Amino acid sequence: MMRVAIVGATGYTGCELLDILIGHPDVRVTSLTAKLDSAIKIHDEFPRFRGRVDLPCTPLDVEEVCKESDIVFLSLPHGVSMKFAAPFFKAGKRVIDLSADFRFSDVSVFEKWYGLPHGAQDLLAQAVYGLPELHAAEIRKARLIANPGCYPTGAILALAPLLHGHHVAPDQVIVDSKSGVTGAGRKASLPLSFGECNESFRAYKVGKHQHTPEIEAELSRVAGSPLIILFTPHLVPMNRGILTTAYLTPLKKIAAGEIIALYREFYANAPFVRIADQGKLADTKDVCGLNYCDISIVVDDRTGKIVVISAIDNLMKGAAGQAVQNMNLMCGFPETAGLK
Amino acid sequence: MMRVAIVGATGYTGCELLDILIGHPDVRVTSLTAKLDSAIKIHDEFPRFRGRVDLPCTPLDVEEVCKESDIVFLSLPHGVSMKFAAPFFKAGKRVIDLSADFRFSDVSVFEKWYGLPHGAQDLLAQAVYGLPELHAAEIRKARLIANPGCYPTGAILALAPLLHGHHVAPDQVIVDSKSGVTGAGRKASLPLSFGECNESFRAYKVGKHQHTPEIEAELSRVAGSPLIILFTPHLVPMNRGILTTAYLTPLKKIAAGEIIALYREFYANAPFVRIADQGKLADTKDVCGLNYCDISIVVDDRTGKIVVISAIDNLMKGAAGQAVQNMNLMCGFPETAGLK
Amino acid sequence: MMRVAIVGATGYTGCELLDILIGHPDVRVTSLTAKLDSAIKIHDEFPRFRGRVDLPCTPLDVEEVCKESDIVFLSLPHGVSMKFAAPFFKAGKRVIDLSADFRFSDVSVFEKWYGLPHGAQDLLAQAVYGLPELHAAEIRKARLIANPGCYPTGAILALAPLLHGHHVAPDQVIVDSKSGVTGAGRKASLPLSFGECNESFRAYKVGKHQHTPEIEAELSRVAGSPLIILFTPHLVPMNRGILTTAYLTPLKKIAAGEIIALYREFYANAPFVRIADQGKLADTKDVCGLNYCDISIVVDDRTGKIVVISAIDNLMKGAAGQAVQNMNLMCGFPETAGLK
Amino acid sequence: MMRVAIVGATGYTGCELLDILIGHPDVRVTSLTAKLDSAIKIHDEFPRFRGRVDLPCTPLDVEEVCKESDIVFLSLPHGVSMKFAAPFFKAGKRVIDLSADFRFSDVSVFEKWYGLPHGAQDLLAQAVYGLPELHAAEIRKARLIANPGCYPTGAILALAPLLHGHHVAPDQVIVDSKSGVTGAGRKASLPLSFGECNESFRAYKVGKHQHTPEIEAELSRVAGSPLIILFTPHLVPMNRGILTTAYLTPLKKIAAGEIIALYREFYANAPFVRIADQGKLADTKDVCGLNYCDISIVVDDRTGKIVVISAIDNLMKGAAGQAVQNMNLMCGFPETAGLK
Repeated sequence: MMRVAIVGATGYTGCELLDILIGHPDVRVTSLTAKLDSAIKIHDEFPRFRGRVDLPCTPLDVEEVCKESDIVFLSLPHGVSMKFAAPFFKAGKRVIDLSADFRFSDVSVFEKWYGLPHGAQDLLAQAVYGLPELHAAEIRKARLIANPGCYPTGAILALAPLLHGHHVAPDQVIVDSKSGVTGAGRKASLPLSFGECNESFRAYKVGKHQHTPEIEAELSRVAGSPLIILFTPHLVPMNRGILTTAYLTPLKKIAAGEIIALYREFYANAPFVRIADQGKLADTKDVCGLNYCDISIVVDDRTGKIVVISAIDNLMKGAAGQAVQNMNLMCGFPETAGLK
Repeated sequence: MMRVAIVGATGYTGCELLDILIGHPDVRVTSLTAKLDSAIKIHDEFPRFRGRVDLPCTPLDVEEVCKESDIVFLSLPHGVSMKFAAPFFKAGKRVIDLSADFRFSDVSVFEKWYGLPHGAQDLLAQAVYGLPELHAAEIRKARLIANPGCYPTGAILALAPLLHGHHVAPDQVIVDSKSGVTGAGRKASLPLSFGECNESFRAYKVGKHQHTPEIEAELSRVAGSPLIILFTPHLVPMNRGILTTAYLTPLKKIAAGEIIALYREFYANAPFVRIADQGKLADTKDVCGLNYCDISIVVDDRTGKIVVISAIDNLMKGAAGQAVQNMNLMCGFPETAGLK
Repeated sequence: MMRVAIVGATGYTGCELLDILIGHPDVRVTSLTAKLDSAIKIHDEFPRFRGRVDLPCTPLDVEEVCKESDIVFLSLPHGVSMKFAAPFFKAGKRVIDLSADFRFSDVSVFEKWYGLPHGAQDLLAQAVYGLPELHAAEIRKARLIANPGCYPTGAILALAPLLHGHHVAPDQVIVDSKSGVTGAGRKASLPLSFGECNESFRAYKVGKHQHTPEIEAELSRVAGSPLIILFTPHLVPMNRGILTTAYLTPLKKIAAGEIIALYREFYANAPFVRIADQGKLADTKDVCGLNYCDISIVVDDRTGKIVVISAIDNLMKGAAGQAVQNMNLMCGFPETAGLK
Repeated sequence: MMRVAIVGATGYTGCELLDILIGHPDVRVTSLTAKLDSAIKIHDEFPRFRGRVDLPCTPLDVEEVCKESDIVFLSLPHGVSMKFAAPFFKAGKRVIDLSADFRFSDVSVFEKWYGLPHGAQDLLAQAVYGLPELHAAEIRKARLIANPGCYPTGAILALAPLLHGHHVAPDQVIVDSKSGVTGAGRKASLPLSFGECNESFRAYKVGKHQHTPEIEAELSRVAGSPLIILFTPHLVPMNRGILTTAYLTPLKKIAAGEIIALYREFYANAPFVRIADQGKLADTKDVCGLNYCDISIVVDDRTGKIVVISAIDNLMKGAAGQAVQNMNLMCGFPETAGLK
């Protein structure tokens, strides 16, 4: 039994991590911390854990966490994770960071898009981008995982096979994504209040969202050459789920059936990617609470464009579920352990 | 054309007031203020007004507002209204206060339930409780209106006829209310965030909600003797609407048809109360955006209890709509002017 | 490994049953049937099962189901279950019926409230009302379980301890319940369409809902004498969850702390009932996806009334979860197996 | 006072039409019909009209409607309108048809996309496409209006100025739209039920939606040459609103400020189009209940693409509001009469 700590347990991702990990056969949650003045019971913050988890959630004490755990999930805001990753890493812990802090090998990209200096650059070389469908081998050997962003997970998985196979124009990629509100985190915020989000649908940060360079970096690697994309996120009045509708221009005519075959081959060893049969369209509710990424392919014969649609649960495959999938690979557990 | 000011224009009630008043045939909105560092355009805060209202919204300057307006709506938090009502009142303005500050003739009740001292007690004697269905005559002569709370409006209208006629036990009144989230105001707040309210249904402040004594005070007056009620509010994952389900114990057997007749007579001159035919049940969506209070009557023959159900839009009959109805009476406009 | 069949697999309850049972350590789902013209894959109806369940869902063939399974869940409308329970029961299967057909020992009550004759009266004596918190011993020996209704589960668990202990007036019980929309089943229906339910809150079947006599029958048994209650259901614009707010009149003064202690003792052996600490109020979101019934106690000193609030997930403790809990008891599995 | 009939008054569009028309200063609603066995009160179907409209809603009797009205709104399914437009038109009535039946001058396009033969081809030459921002002059003279579809309204208004000015590649237009659920009509339907739509986000009919050729026909006219577009509709869990995110490829570099200026000039005489200032993004909630189309412009410097976002209320500018705007033009009323 590996011992696990969640640093940042009072957010939506921390809550989801805990929910998964208490059912995981190979680990035991031993430590929960959060930005707090003094210790609470975790079920004081999330009553759903009452009778299921009897752990305190305490202010972070790095040494204490090091004593109590072998694996540390950092579920912290970007800019904060970078301060705590180093001590855990140096203490020999396996670290899975859910922030953006270690997702970019090129630190200048991080600093430009996140608008703050990077405080732990020496660790960047150790970090592996934790998208198991593309990096399983490195993840198995890693001690520091940069868990992907929610939008990038849905977008990269939707696009990788076609870009990898050079089937589409790399400079004509449009990614139109729609996310449930928990994707924005758990906090007091007027724009995220019920009265402002319910019965509302809106785009935000068009072309400027900080997940843009993350999608680009991975897809460039996959495509074998640098590419830039147009990324438009939207907010949907629902709790969970991201649907990504991506528009691609094929370099030569290709049928939906061929693309589906190509995707199924590309993801043949990926237990959490499901490629829909032709004519079926992904729906966020079909992945709600699950770690799957569902992908649908449409070829529009009239315009010649390819439309790829992916659906994930932003808290599962888009955050906590994927983090556990990474842990499974790092620790030699079955990839699907604890994730049904 | 009377000139109207809205003090506190950036909340949900302020927004709704403005939406009504710009369509009102007898007034002109001349002044909008809010807690701001500097002036903005109102459509910067609420883009729905773009092209419809071209007014700045400024930090409050009492003298300026006095110059520009004849009628002042105070759409401010309780405890704040009391500071500003006096100067407007003394300047001869008609004041309609949407906070709780002037709703209690007994100041000790206010101070106990709201937990703060009253800073404008001398004005209390001038204030009229602005429930037009019960106080139309006084409202017509008033210069300071205490606009009722949202829950009290739905509850009092639902219960007044039976209590006034001494048909039910005054010590056995249970009021179970369910409100949409805008009833809690427009603000950054974790419990009011989308992720915490959506797919959630919960009670709050059971037996302790500050609207309890307001309901009691009015119903005691109606019943002719002091009564206490049990009031339980709940939060519904929708924007607008309050449904109140009230349970009453009849003093002697009375049929639903008789009660309906009694209610229709009681509200014969009330243009905004609609008594449903027997067998029809009130639904918040039927009053959404409207100033009506819909009331349904059920007599449960098995237990002998009477169930009265009322539905209002908390922003209309529960706040802004009723405030305009009060203005109409105060100014001698038709009671329904601007309210369809 | 026991083999399990779900008869009626294409409703919300059937879907939830399947989701639970595929993760259950002691059973294997071997048969899925529904009202169909020909066999489909279950993931054609519910894509969330793609890659997780590879079973066809077929038109019901009783003999076939008998061959393939040891335990049969009937997830059928009332009036339909009664036709199929007998052959399975007589073939020696353990039968868990989620309809109302076997919930009433007094067949005349069923026939009056459901408006149809009972076609399997000979089986009624075999049926055990499957509320494990009250009937665990009989459930363990039963071969036919009448799984409780969703509203009754929340209401009975909320009220049993106080009625059993004769602490409250049995003729003054008011049950005000609010349910998410999946409680009404999965079907094409205008009143259940999104446009009619969203941004709407309404009561329905006040005093006439068919769950009323079910609550009464159980609570009468608990109280030791016949009682009648007033039951008012409401529809909440959310998918899952029932909050029940029950109003009780104590026979003599009793403090909230005492009641909480009494409830904790009453449910000391019930792994799925959680009694909240004083001052904490149940919220449906805290039981979403879980088999718990959360109960909160408030004593209103002003009116002397007791308010008991319970929250369940209507598809879990209110249907599929409780059915699995019953199966666990019948088969000698741990009571919580497969239910976290 | 013109006399107005609504044929098909029990759908969401019929309801919205009635709500607008009873507040319209220049008309009187005299006739409501629907597919019914016998007459009802309209407030039996829509209780929100109780006390506001005292009209029966009857089975359609063409002669009767002709006697009672000067203007006829046909709010019927496609394929049905075509049967009733002719008698009203021939009786000299002004007809505003909200179905798709008269939107295509090329009947073969209609027959291909709607899959049924056109039964009133002789009337097509009389029909004017009722998008006032593009066809005001013809609308003023028309006696038969084909009121645009909801998606086309949002898409065409978003794209017309850039295509008209030949600023963008006409063969690279991608339209990604997201609609509230009332856009699908008022009917019993499993896919439109609350349980299937809430907490769900999905695309449908990708590249195949019947509004595609309508958008193409108008934009081809505007651009001066035939174009084809890729159109992807999605369903949003909210009642009202369509957000359209359109992706365009400029023929030469053009700044957001220039485009905004160009749009403001193009729509200088259009009272219901609002072009947002640079940096502000359209939100469906800002047009909820209003007849505006809000348009935002973003130029993505990194990819060179132009993103145009439009927001409408599908029941207002997308249906009933626009129909009334058309009526205003046809009858010589102020264009904004009854629409605030």
